[in-house]
Amino acid sequence: MASYKMGPQTYAVPMSLFKHNRERSCTALLENLDKCLKSPYALLEGGKDLSLYNTDVEYVFRQESYFQYLFGVKEPGCYGLLDIKKSRAILFVPRLPEEYETWMGPLLTLEHFKTMYEVDEVHFVDELTTFLGKVQPDLILTLSGTNSDSGLTMQPPEFEGKDKYVTNCDILYPILSECRVIKSAEEIEVLRYVAKVSSDAHIKVMKFVRPGHMEYEAEAVFLHHAYAVGGCRHASYTCICGSGTNSAILHYGHAGAPNNRPIQSGDMCLFDMGANYCGYAADITCSFPANGKFTEDQKFIYNAVLDARNAVMQSARDGISWVDMHKLAGKVLMQRLKDGGMLKGDVDEMLAAGLSGVFQPHGLGHLIGLDVHDVGGYLPKEPARPKEAWISKLRFARILRAGMYVTIEPGCYFIKRLMDQALADPQLSKFINIEVFERFRGFGGVRIEDDVLITKDGTENFAIVPRTIEEIEKAMASA
Amino acid sequence: MASYKMGPQTYAVPMSLFKHNRERSCTALLENLDKCLKSPYALLEGGKDLSLYNTDVEYVFRQESYFQYLFGVKEPGCYGLLDIKKSRAILFVPRLPEEYETWMGPLLTLEHFKTMYEVDEVHFVDELTTFLGKVQPDLILTLSGTNSDSGLTMQPPEFEGKDKYVTNCDILYPILSECRVIKSAEEIEVLRYVAKVSSDAHIKVMKFVRPGHMEYEAEAVFLHHAYAVGGCRHASYTCICGSGTNSAILHYGHAGAPNNRPIQSGDMCLFDMGANYCGYAADITCSFPANGKFTEDQKFIYNAVLDARNAVMQSARDGISWVDMHKLAGKVLMQRLKDGGMLKGDVDEMLAAGLSGVFQPHGLGHLIGLDVHDVGGYLPKEPARPKEAWISKLRFARILRAGMYVTIEPGCYFIKRLMDQALADPQLSKFINIEVFERFRGFGGVRIEDDVLITKDGTENFAIVPRTIEEIEKAMASA
Repeated sequence: MASYKMGPQTYAVPMSLFKHNRERSCTALLENLDKCLKSPYALLEGGKDLSLYNTDVEYVFRQESYFQYLFGVKEPGCYGLLDIKKSRAILFVPRLPEEYETWMGPLLTLEHFKTMYEVDEVHFVDELTTFLGKVQPDLILTLSGTNSDSGLTMQPPEFEGKDKYVTNCDILYPILSECRVIKSAEEIEVLRYVAKVSSDAHIKVMKFVRPGHMEYEAEAVFLHHAYAVGGCRHASYTCICGSGTNSAILHYGHAGAPNNRPIQSGDMCLFDMGANYCGYAADITCSFPANGKFTEDQKFIYNAVLDARNAVMQSARDGISWVDMHKLAGKVLMQRLKDGGMLKGDVDEMLAAGLSGVFQPHGLGHLIGLDVHDVGGYLPKEPARPKEAWISKLRFARILRAGMYVTIEPGCYFIKRLMDQALADPQLSKFINIEVFERFRGFGGVRIEDDVLITKDGTENFAIVPRTIEEIEKAMASA
Repeated sequence: MASYKMGPQTYAVPMSLFKHNRERSCTALLENLDKCLKSPYALLEGGKDLSLYNTDVEYVFRQESYFQYLFGVKEPGCYGLLDIKKSRAILFVPRLPEEYETWMGPLLTLEHFKTMYEVDEVHFVDELTTFLGKVQPDLILTLSGTNSDSGLTMQPPEFEGKDKYVTNCDILYPILSECRVIKSAEEIEVLRYVAKVSSDAHIKVMKFVRPGHMEYEAEAVFLHHAYAVGGCRHASYTCICGSGTNSAILHYGHAGAPNNRPIQSGDMCLFDMGANYCGYAADITCSFPANGKFTEDQKFIYNAVLDARNAVMQSARDGISWVDMHKLAGKVLMQRLKDGGMLKGDVDEMLAAGLSGVFQPHGLGHLIGLDVHDVGGYLPKEPARPKEAWISKLRFARILRAGMYVTIEPGCYFIKRLMDQALADPQLSKFINIEVFERFRGFGGVRIEDDVLITKDGTENFAIVPRTIEEIEKAMASA
């Protein structure tokens, strides 16, 4: 039983996971293909090494997610063929020059690769054309499609003799994407593992942080735990370590704002970080006070967000609309801000006016899996992106189904531009108690982000971190 | 005085460094341009954000090195113009939509950028065409050239209205490359800093390593120190953490062999890691026994390499040929292996036969600076790559000059394929005492790599790590 395993204490991802992904994909493809086809194949191109500009430094390789989903291969430069009718996998690996051994280590034989990845056949990439000539597919599906989060389009692979075959680059992408949406039992265990590693790393960060530390020191603590303990060489996305007003910058941490502020007394900290193991992602946010003790204002906002999160956590399950969950979170948030004296008037009218988007300009959450913003959001057969401004940022608008894995991440931020816009708009400002609202300029923000499996009857949360005020204060006091 | 500074304890890189780089470059360019030119400009394209395949995850941005050399800008998507006669710098930054503030933080004004980078003017990228129309350059130099280490060619930037101007994409690359070879006083201090951070991180690793730890745990310790203490978010290249036979794999640590072996009693460890600060690189290798105590065999090989390193360190200086240094290291290594009973016969004959390349299949070292394998290796006016096999791997073959910054990294490895080839070749095997040689199969390898400034009279080593057996054993015992 082959597996991917980084170290003795890290999770062993069975290669059967990828075999089952292939079986599921082949079944789904057959349902969508002409029954008369005798030997349809799918051809996938693995990720390639990527150079830093024109230098000989390469980024540490990360596999392309669709290829990872079907083959679980860690090396660059491969191709994979699926014999769809037989659910057979044929892996093509680069033929490396002998000198490779000196620079990159012992050359693996084809038999090695076959054993390591439990595929049915392995050949060299330069044998692809010959192989196709032998099996004579009557259809070759290739992968091409547009990611609904990035808007970027993947181009189908080119290969020698392509024009001799009937190829189609439209069918594969949406079907594989849909397969990726519902997680298998084996995938769920990997996701549980990487979420646990990330949770533990967050707890370590929480205990580490105190005024005087730099934000990037917290990032370094997270990355170190994820790698040294969890065997996760990669983060799933750039770490967001915002303190003070930076906690209200949703994608803080990028090159222009690289987590380089000293954390100060009185700050809220909003740390959004997730490790990656064998391609599978975690995406967890913890919000806590730098001092380890919440002020009354911090309690107010934190508990408003926590209540929104709890409401969703208790309501989400198979059959429930994700859009309704977003609305529910917005409604609870508005109600709590009203209870605390920041807002006034009718909560449903606030929602109708879009007030919720002033405080939480992002969607409630997203699908997660091999990609942190996982595919399957706006597939052709699924509901389109909602038009209303405060709902339009949702990364999917589907009915939840058991086996979906999503982030639930309500937030409440005090963002200068959005505050000013709201105050300038009578349709919004009429709900605002200006004095209270203005007190929160410079507060920053709170987000509570969990990684949640949707089940028949409810949810299972894989992010195991302190969430209540009492839990957080206790964890930070035990540092 | 603006500077790049990650945290309160990290080095402040003065923006005057980049201004002086520009001045030097403009002077060099003027020497090579037609004296009749009235308003020659150079146009450089900054690095762009890079997506992970078609997803919305982006690699943490790293600036393109030529652009960094001239402008020191940390944001993606910029352009830079140099008014070569006046040595004036005009920076063009992306015009960001207002919503950017919510996701990426407060928008910087043009004035902010001007102050932050101490350039002469700042405009938006979409104003480049208008700007050029106003200043009417009679020549625009653009950057295009082939990196002699990667073989990859950089394409010159395209811009609107390019065909209205006289442009040249051949002149700039070799001249800027040559400017980058000799480090300025300000650059030297940054290089000293990043080498010190990397040295300290190596010492931490050395104290951490014991049998039972995984190789990647050591990588994690290094990266954590580099970032948390040194403020270095990036490594200059993928960490090489080889133990046992992996220490003889020159570029171990890549995706197919990701530092995932448990370190074992009796292993040699060869850890090659360097941090990156403000674009500037370190590249340091430490070799030590996993147990903290050298065996006699380990002492034999380690001291042979150390003697080769010491010989070069004592001989290198302004005016000396780098090829001669490579030969000197090879000669000392052969002599010591002969002294220890592994080789027999005449050392000069061994060298002539290429035996040195069996033990050290790589060059003695390389230029280092903004790139770990820095530019300037095989420029048109400099000596070409040597033809002899055991010298041909050198990344440059120049006469050393004061202000050059190089790695000195002799090594001795026992690589199965090269050992077998040597034994099968009578011209090589005649120098080998087979019994002794065979005892070292499975030994792995030793590399000692320092980062060294060439001065008028000698060298200055910026890698401050334990180097003698006594120093290493003492450091490891103090863990």
